[in-house]
Amino acid sequence: MENLSKTELLYDGNEKQIYATQDPDKVIIRYKDVTTAYKNIKRARFEGIGAYNNKISAMLFEELGKEGIDNHFIRLVSDTEQLCRKIVWINIVVVVHNWFAGSLARRLNIAEGVKCPNVIVDFRYNSDELDDPLINDDQAVALGLASYEELKFIDATSRKINEILLKRFSDAGIKLVDFKIEFGRTADGQIILSDELSPDRCRLWDAETGKKLDKDRFRQDLGYIVDGYKEVYERLKK
Amino acid sequence: MENLSKTELLYDGNEKQIYATQDPDKVIIRYKDVTTAYKNIKRARFEGIGAYNNKISAMLFEELGKEGIDNHFIRLVSDTEQLCRKIVWINIVVVVHNWFAGSLARRLNIAEGVKCPNVIVDFRYNSDELDDPLINDDQAVALGLASYEELKFIDATSRKINEILLKRFSDAGIKLVDFKIEFGRTADGQIILSDELSPDRCRLWDAETGKKLDKDRFRQDLGYIVDGYKEVYERLKK
Repeated sequence: MENLSKTELLYDGNEKQIYATQDPDKVIIRYKDVTTAYKNIKRARFEGIGAYNNKISAMLFEELGKEGIDNHFIRLVSDTEQLCRKIVWINIVVVVHNWFAGSLARRLNIAEGVKCPNVIVDFRYNSDELDDPLINDDQAVALGLASYEELKFIDATSRKINEILLKRFSDAGIKLVDFKIEFGRTADGQIILSDELSPDRCRLWDAETGKKLDKDRFRQDLGYIVDGYKEVYERLKK
Repeated sequence: MENLSKTELLYDGNEKQIYATQDPDKVIIRYKDVTTAYKNIKRARFEGIGAYNNKISAMLFEELGKEGIDNHFIRLVSDTEQLCRKIVWINIVVVVHNWFAGSLARRLNIAEGVKCPNVIVDFRYNSDELDDPLINDDQAVALGLASYEELKFIDATSRKINEILLKRFSDAGIKLVDFKIEFGRTADGQIILSDELSPDRCRLWDAETGKKLDKDRFRQDLGYIVDGYKEVYERLKK
């Protein structure tokens, strides 16, 4: 295995840093011990949260890869770092909903916790300034974010990922209420799953009690956030 | 031709009334001399505006019918009234955009007047309370508004209507910037174009000068609104 290490800092985000490596097609992503919400208005440091996000995301991406979902994850480098394929971001956040919650529930005036009669796949324009507005395919193409064909691929892949993860979490006694994913383009133009899959990006409710094990613990002050993330990690590990 | 007249008032809206007739499958729609904007916060009476909306809508629906777009219009009854097929509303407002303007331009932060690189067809959930939020197909199906197949038909029909109207207005020296339409289900379950097509539902700019000939005259206090509607009617009549 090649011996790659962090060189230049390429991106310093709220919750993650991306470093170049000796290989131009590979980056090291470092997960910070920081959680933010409400567009970075609410922000806090939590010892250990970066490691849980890193390890949960690594585990799920590895499993998805085995199920034929091409993604950026290569291998863990440390508790808080992973080696990934370098991609160019596609500025679309895909949100997949199995139960109504959060902004979708408010937007359509449906009570949180109602099961969606069909899976809902939303595309949002990744723009802090515009508050990630919902967009449709025509708007995404007009904005130059992707072609109609690429959007179809992203939509179909997101539904496949949902099927795999729904079962994976259900087997761990967790309801996958909704989750956010992002895709990117590799140097050779392939579209692959990127970013992360962690309790920072998912709504995860205990299947029996409905207890929230995700970032809503932080958003809504429901208890020590790291306990929720640790529980998700340990249940998935089994 | 059967002799139908208004019987029971079925619906009393801001700008229109719908009356039953002796035929259970037919209604008479009466256009009021009223214009409203910003969810009925701005409201005014304009002598003659109902007649222009009625006559423009009648003209366009008749032409669309000849081009194969099934719709609710049967015939004019008076200057302010038309006989229509009775439908059950589908609670989706379809907005077709050829140039960026209004809420779409603000939402995506694109300057008003920029040409859309591709036609944009938006579905909005018809709900005053929720401010007509943009929805995608999955959301529309989850809300029980229509099936995936029906949404495909509505989308394709809206694009056909746009092609016909773009040319029709262009021939009259007018840019069809965007327009809103609605569809309904007939007693036998057919989906047909309904509601109206008028300067109340379209953004219409003079092709040379960019002068606004539509309801934005009222929204933005750009001059006597009825002059704009009259000009649209007379240009289309030629």
